[in-house]
Amino acid sequence: MPDLPVMVIGGGPCGMEATRGISDLGYNVVLVDKAEFLGGNPIAGDYAALTPDMRNAEDAMNEMIEAITDNPLIEIRLNSSVVAAEGKAPDLSVTVKNGKGDEKIDVGSVIISTGFQHFDPGKETQIYGYYEYDDVITLVDVERMLKAGKFVRPSTGEKPKQVCFIQCVGSRDRQIGNQWCSKVCCGIATKEAIEIRDLVPDCKVFVFYIDMRMYGFWEDELYWKAQEEKQVNFIRGIVTEITLRGDGVVVKGEDTTMGRPMEIPMDVVILSIGMEPSKGSTEMAKLFDIPLESHGFIETIGGALNTVQTSAPGIFAAGASTGPADLEDSISMGGAAALKACAFIRKSQLQTA
Amino acid sequence: MPDLPVMVIGGGPCGMEATRGISDLGYNVVLVDKAEFLGGNPIAGDYAALTPDMRNAEDAMNEMIEAITDNPLIEIRLNSSVVAAEGKAPDLSVTVKNGKGDEKIDVGSVIISTGFQHFDPGKETQIYGYYEYDDVITLVDVERMLKAGKFVRPSTGEKPKQVCFIQCVGSRDRQIGNQWCSKVCCGIATKEAIEIRDLVPDCKVFVFYIDMRMYGFWEDELYWKAQEEKQVNFIRGIVTEITLRGDGVVVKGEDTTMGRPMEIPMDVVILSIGMEPSKGSTEMAKLFDIPLESHGFIETIGGALNTVQTSAPGIFAAGASTGPADLEDSISMGGAAALKACAFIRKSQLQTA
Repeated sequence: MPDLPVMVIGGGPCGMEATRGISDLGYNVVLVDKAEFLGGNPIAGDYAALTPDMRNAEDAMNEMIEAITDNPLIEIRLNSSVVAAEGKAPDLSVTVKNGKGDEKIDVGSVIISTGFQHFDPGKETQIYGYYEYDDVITLVDVERMLKAGKFVRPSTGEKPKQVCFIQCVGSRDRQIGNQWCSKVCCGIATKEAIEIRDLVPDCKVFVFYIDMRMYGFWEDELYWKAQEEKQVNFIRGIVTEITLRGDGVVVKGEDTTMGRPMEIPMDVVILSIGMEPSKGSTEMAKLFDIPLESHGFIETIGGALNTVQTSAPGIFAAGASTGPADLEDSISMGGAAALKACAFIRKSQLQTA
Repeated sequence: MPDLPVMVIGGGPCGMEATRGISDLGYNVVLVDKAEFLGGNPIAGDYAALTPDMRNAEDAMNEMIEAITDNPLIEIRLNSSVVAAEGKAPDLSVTVKNGKGDEKIDVGSVIISTGFQHFDPGKETQIYGYYEYDDVITLVDVERMLKAGKFVRPSTGEKPKQVCFIQCVGSRDRQIGNQWCSKVCCGIATKEAIEIRDLVPDCKVFVFYIDMRMYGFWEDELYWKAQEEKQVNFIRGIVTEITLRGDGVVVKGEDTTMGRPMEIPMDVVILSIGMEPSKGSTEMAKLFDIPLESHGFIETIGGALNTVQTSAPGIFAAGASTGPADLEDSISMGGAAALKACAFIRKSQLQTA
């Protein structure tokens, strides 16, 4: 009997790494994504460069895509949604819906790598005027501009003279219900601050933060570099309000290090929006009957010692579907999940042999 | 020809997870550790509980040990050091030295999981009087006490009334040469603060920090919990000096949020020491001819998209041997490295078949 394939749901970095890993071990894999392209958020969000290594995001994703293309062990289904699952792994029948209708695929194991979605700063309530003021944008909007090789003030199309990042928008915030830290926004904002300084050397860049969570090598490779080589200004402060003044926006709040109120005009305000569980992650949890953990991400049950195990045998979850994750987390977890899915199929075969 | 084994060097959480993964895929593995026990730092350092899930560390390590014991695919060599390597993977002959002399083992691939060592706060210079004052201890000393079910003032053996943690000792510090953030110390200190409050409810606990790097779910599961349920006091401040006064120590510095100098007597001062490359990691890099990255950890060359790849084909590095890593990083990387090592052996066999 040929190996039943592993189904990987979600073709972002985590899912692509899992797919490659499974095929590298000689197992079959079906990669499903509801988008018409592979690459996940880095492609959907037009990311310019990866954090922390500042590698061109499209090049990096293309390399990952190439590694799983034209491989007889790998089937890729784009524009496809997983809509039903019957049975239990390793005897699982998964229904995939696409333009050609419904297709039932027998799979031995599943990896859910459906990732995160960006916090919408207008979803619950108007936060910092994102939907009101043209010059209030998000980290993702900046990526799109940087990818196009420019950084301008949206309302005028001119080069800005003074811009700021506001950290923790949609993170660490009980008011809006997102109690977690999204882990990567400090790093991404700092990376973008460096890129803005490179692209518009006359532009002053400020980052307003609660704690700069620049763990590991991000500390000196991004954070110190931004301060020492690129003169980015990090201010520990709370921004309470953004208002219009003349044709620009004004950031009001408190500099908590200096202990004084601040009121600074900005040409562009960038909201460092956090990660939320994606719709796909919530849907897949429900479909495969896996609980969500308290923050709404997919629950893994192995604690720190088993990062990809869910309560359903043979169904694994990896990357940002399980909680805030940086790219390295997603890649390592994709590999770890690939191993466990293949081992699960192998064990099932040994038992039935 | 039977599979050549993968050699895993270092039997901490990362190495044990890799070992289990390799055997789960049906490949042979030789796990080597120079200690006389498995479990790595959590056992060597007498850790009480894991971060963040507060699971009993010894129980957790025993579970990992059990999972790789009595498996015909797994050979475990304790009290054993890797002292030489000849050839290139997959034709590699590794010499292991132990009580019985030197033994040459043919292996197809290698995973280096030799971890980190704790920063020694007296190594370069007397830092905060660790070697001078009995009541100045480290995070690791606290684990040892907590594991024994007590928390006392070392100089008197009595329950302390006021204790503090000083973060970033041996991290984020250009003076001593450690420019990285060690990633886990904020979480571990907060976990210990909670445990101390549980064990000695009358004891006030302070944490002096630069940034609290409580990423992901650590934010509310540890940091908010410590503040709201356990009344731990987090103070953004710089401690410049610890001196003796009477029979106690006094912490002097500046509360940077309040912008005022502080001078607080403490019964116990706990230094949150960071991670450094372990001697074993440095030695293995040299022995397998792999460069160290700029901070002195083992260099991986795949950036964020390949967390375990070194410049030597078939030689992988995982966990804290490659840089500051939390337990989840170590476990995920152990799995990812296991997959890549098995895939490397498989590919080599396909090429020679």
